[in-house]
Amino acid sequence: MDRRTFLGTLAAGVVAARQELSATTPPAASIAATPPAASIDAAALRERIEALSVFGRPADGSFADGVSRVAYSDADVAGRNYVMDLMRKAGLTPRIDAAGNIFAKREGTEPALAPILFGSHIDSVPQGGNFDGDLGSLAALAALEACERAQLQTRHPLEIVVWAAEEGVAFNRGLSSSRIVAGDIAPSDMEQVWNGMRRGDAIKRIGGDPRRIMDARRPKRTWHGYLELHIEQGGTLERGGLDIGVVQGIVAIERYEARITGFANHAGTTPMADRQDAAVAAAHLTLAVREAVTSRPGRQVGTVGKMDLSPNAPNVVPGSATLIIELRDLSVDLLKTLAKEIRARAASIAAATKTTIEIVPASSNAPAIADTAVQDVIERTAKNLNLSSVRMPSGAGHDAQMMAQLAPMGMIFVPSVGGISHSPKELTSWKDCANGANVLLHAVLSLDRA
Amino acid sequence: MDRRTFLGTLAAGVVAARQELSATTPPAASIAATPPAASIDAAALRERIEALSVFGRPADGSFADGVSRVAYSDADVAGRNYVMDLMRKAGLTPRIDAAGNIFAKREGTEPALAPILFGSHIDSVPQGGNFDGDLGSLAALAALEACERAQLQTRHPLEIVVWAAEEGVAFNRGLSSSRIVAGDIAPSDMEQVWNGMRRGDAIKRIGGDPRRIMDARRPKRTWHGYLELHIEQGGTLERGGLDIGVVQGIVAIERYEARITGFANHAGTTPMADRQDAAVAAAHLTLAVREAVTSRPGRQVGTVGKMDLSPNAPNVVPGSATLIIELRDLSVDLLKTLAKEIRARAASIAAATKTTIEIVPASSNAPAIADTAVQDVIERTAKNLNLSSVRMPSGAGHDAQMMAQLAPMGMIFVPSVGGISHSPKELTSWKDCANGANVLLHAVLSLDRA
Repeated sequence: MDRRTFLGTLAAGVVAARQELSATTPPAASIAATPPAASIDAAALRERIEALSVFGRPADGSFADGVSRVAYSDADVAGRNYVMDLMRKAGLTPRIDAAGNIFAKREGTEPALAPILFGSHIDSVPQGGNFDGDLGSLAALAALEACERAQLQTRHPLEIVVWAAEEGVAFNRGLSSSRIVAGDIAPSDMEQVWNGMRRGDAIKRIGGDPRRIMDARRPKRTWHGYLELHIEQGGTLERGGLDIGVVQGIVAIERYEARITGFANHAGTTPMADRQDAAVAAAHLTLAVREAVTSRPGRQVGTVGKMDLSPNAPNVVPGSATLIIELRDLSVDLLKTLAKEIRARAASIAAATKTTIEIVPASSNAPAIADTAVQDVIERTAKNLNLSSVRMPSGAGHDAQMMAQLAPMGMIFVPSVGGISHSPKELTSWKDCANGANVLLHAVLSLDRA
Repeated sequence: MDRRTFLGTLAAGVVAARQELSATTPPAASIAATPPAASIDAAALRERIEALSVFGRPADGSFADGVSRVAYSDADVAGRNYVMDLMRKAGLTPRIDAAGNIFAKREGTEPALAPILFGSHIDSVPQGGNFDGDLGSLAALAALEACERAQLQTRHPLEIVVWAAEEGVAFNRGLSSSRIVAGDIAPSDMEQVWNGMRRGDAIKRIGGDPRRIMDARRPKRTWHGYLELHIEQGGTLERGGLDIGVVQGIVAIERYEARITGFANHAGTTPMADRQDAAVAAAHLTLAVREAVTSRPGRQVGTVGKMDLSPNAPNVVPGSATLIIELRDLSVDLLKTLAKEIRARAASIAAATKTTIEIVPASSNAPAIADTAVQDVIERTAKNLNLSSVRMPSGAGHDAQMMAQLAPMGMIFVPSVGGISHSPKELTSWKDCANGANVLLHAVLSLDRA
């Protein structure tokens, strides 16, 4: 595993910067470490996260626009090659399934047992950060390497994965390659076109095989369990001064389209009392969503992120407006209650503003509950490593959501500075990266013994 | 004045429809009328308004999309030719000034006196109606014809006008040809390009002369007074069961751009308490504008007609929002008070939503006050014709706004059914059209005696 050699293949300027960083980081804790028997090489993890960030940055190497490693792009292909190269240098044999997911396995002592799977993704949103997905993917490899260094034998095979197309930027949102593995796929999906590219051709670009796409589906119990380390993407851990989030599950997401119909009229000649102003109704509804969501305790969230007025001209009383209302919580019942309350408020708003408001379901994602035994393992592991933790929902979707359909699932969160993600400002401290990777490693080893 | 002959030049199908309409309308009241000495030919006025509406309708003659006679278009040129033809048939000699405005004059008995000017425009918004501008333009011609029929001699010359490009659809809003006459023009304005057309070339298309554009300016006291008949475009007259609006002036328009800066973040992972949601701030501000405007008596109006969220995605807490706040009233002082109050509310909203709100003046149109003596004349004229009236501001801009800079100005409003304008549904009853035209005629005659 000669990182210097690999880095030598990158552009010279970047190499210099990376080597400098490498020279100033303290020697990896694991070199001198004795118990716990296995430990993550924190310096190598940091170096690889930084090296991976090169793929998807502009040619001048600037960080200002963050990382744009959209699924199926040249940057994605290059980043995947970098990670597969690291796997090979670690003595592993990466394998790409028909959907483009990268797997690599280290055998266990009991071949009849199902492997324990862990990993994440490395594709990004446009102008995203360096930690979303990357940390979990590279930490998974680091955990396998730590076992190898410590010459640890596990009962179960340990399998790591880099899922493809998690961010849902390319093609329609939701059809990630982990979803394909969970079985939600039809051959016709390969024909979808995005930016002039067929999905089948996109999957071929990253080494998948669209003709055999149905073979990517894996049955239940393929894996003994699934673990994923990820940045929180919210500010709960940082604000609480906590090291580790033990994810209780991935929230359900309900989206509704609110269609407000008023009457477009002249903004100069229409008296205030005569108006049927769709913007005023939209404003009331936006506040009603926030009020309904915040009027009870809990971690539920509700957002009006998209709003479009028509005709959207300064001198015309808006005649219509369309809003997307998004509600998220682990409890589907609570989401139904919230939706009912918002509908009731919308009816009052429509009456008061002389508009009509139609609220139509737009999409619905079921929650994915983390296995409670796996949650216990993660919590105990954090405690053994002297790390504080809290149980919390994940408000964002993750590949783990799909894997919960096939195996007991658990997720480990580490703090996001300022709660910022999907942004060049996305940041997790190197210490938290190493903490999370060590929890992943030891939770895997604990699951192996269970 | 052989209307049948002229109509014979139109497409056969339309002619048939028009002739049928003409045949079913009652004989013009004026034919048998004795006092008042002069009276509008209501049937001819109706027929011409309908004939003019042909120019700018789709080839199939459908009314569903209304009339699209945008300034400088082929439909505009054809409509202008139709009106100039009517003028010639009435024995007048239309003249086009350098800015493209059409003037025609009937001499008075005292050549040293300045003419009384009256008229309106015939260009329309896309998918507009048949009355906005058309009524005032054709009523002006009908008034001149009524004087001729009654063999009335006036002291002042009577001059009618069809202003060009009132609607501000082509090129930048505001530089109507009446504004050019009022002197707000520079030779460089002719170079502006819209839809691939230079403004100079556009003005040439309608018979103007861009090289002599500065000659279109007319000094103060060019006219003894200016009168314009127009549809109300609001619902005040209809709701009050009133015949005539005596316009007190054209309101001032102040526009502000409100720039709200929050922080774009993940809609799933960002707790409600941590959000800096620009959409929530925008909603509060939209309601604050309405509240400030409606919290005191008066006819002032305030509108948020344009609102744009960024990034405007269902799963992102909006990071920024831009709103246009438009305030209109005759009193500039009131508008300043309202703006101050909205700024104060914005500061509270910014604090409560953890956003910043910057409110920047975007544009400012001074009010144009109608001459009080002219208002008195219009009010008295209506009363003499047994028509009810009310004094009211004009919330919409009009050519009269520009003419107020050159001469004592007055405007006559007639009811808009449902308060609708700039729409295929724009409607004014034929009776109200005739009433307005008769008020215009007799107000002109009254001004001539003053």
